[in-house]
Amino acid sequence: MATEKVKRLLINFKTLEDFQQFKEVGAQELSMKEELEENIIENDSESPFYGIYYGDRLVARMCLYKIESKYDQYFDPPKGYLELWKLEVLEGYKHKGYGQALVEHAKSFNIPVKTNARQRSDDFWNKMDFQPVTYDPDRDRGENPFVWYPAGVQPQE
Amino acid sequence: MATEKVKRLLINFKTLEDFQQFKEVGAQELSMKEELEENIIENDSESPFYGIYYGDRLVARMCLYKIESKYDQYFDPPKGYLELWKLEVLEGYKHKGYGQALVEHAKSFNIPVKTNARQRSDDFWNKMDFQPVTYDPDRDRGENPFVWYPAGVQPQE
Repeated sequence: MATEKVKRLLINFKTLEDFQQFKEVGAQELSMKEELEENIIENDSESPFYGIYYGDRLVARMCLYKIESKYDQYFDPPKGYLELWKLEVLEGYKHKGYGQALVEHAKSFNIPVKTNARQRSDDFWNKMDFQPVTYDPDRDRGENPFVWYPAGVQPQE
Repeated sequence: MATEKVKRLLINFKTLEDFQQFKEVGAQELSMKEELEENIIENDSESPFYGIYYGDRLVARMCLYKIESKYDQYFDPPKGYLELWKLEVLEGYKHKGYGQALVEHAKSFNIPVKTNARQRSDDFWNKMDFQPVTYDPDRDRGENPFVWYPAGVQPQE
């Protein structure tokens, strides 16, 4: 395990260039770039991204977003949770525990975590102690949610 | 163009078996299988999926879900829209217009369509006359939304 390697990423032009190596890149990264260029956010602002560097190369990342309790449709008590997305490890760096280190970091905040498990990644999430939810079409709308419950937290009825 | 080939899929054991060929399969399909097995839904019920068959093989599919106007954060007037997801064409059947036929079918309902463009598919969506939105972190939470505006519909301010 290499949890200690996980860093909160700073928004700057190097980070944004690093992001281009990942497959799941889109509006969010573009928006950060525009905000940086227009000085809406400062260089080296903290981002919602966490990553692992190998040397000075960003080789794994994830995004964590706090969902407020009033929007919490997954957990009881509904105190809010972390939505984890864009978990991705670059080719050539997979199967070295980087994905696991990022997920452990998300769990270390000790509030519930939810993700949308993609493309047959169920085995990975099970290994991370995440569980599938009972699918609710109105809530989940095609997603494949896996959740992690800290002690004392249960599925919302 | 082959719009006429698009069929609304019926939920039955063959359809659910066909779904296993697609990469993006998860809680939604599992839930449909359980509901069918437990007679909560009837065999051959209409599903939210649309697909294209090559012979009797399902080779392309998408899911359409109507978002009610009160949840419409994208369009003005906010009259509700179709969320399009799980658009996927099987290997060996790509680049034959099947994906385009499905998207044209979604547009044929003549209400706005929104999708979460994934893994560098922006060029495809642009070709389909979809447009990226101005990223809003609270609304879009890491998604990469592309939308299609029918005549008379504009982005929500």
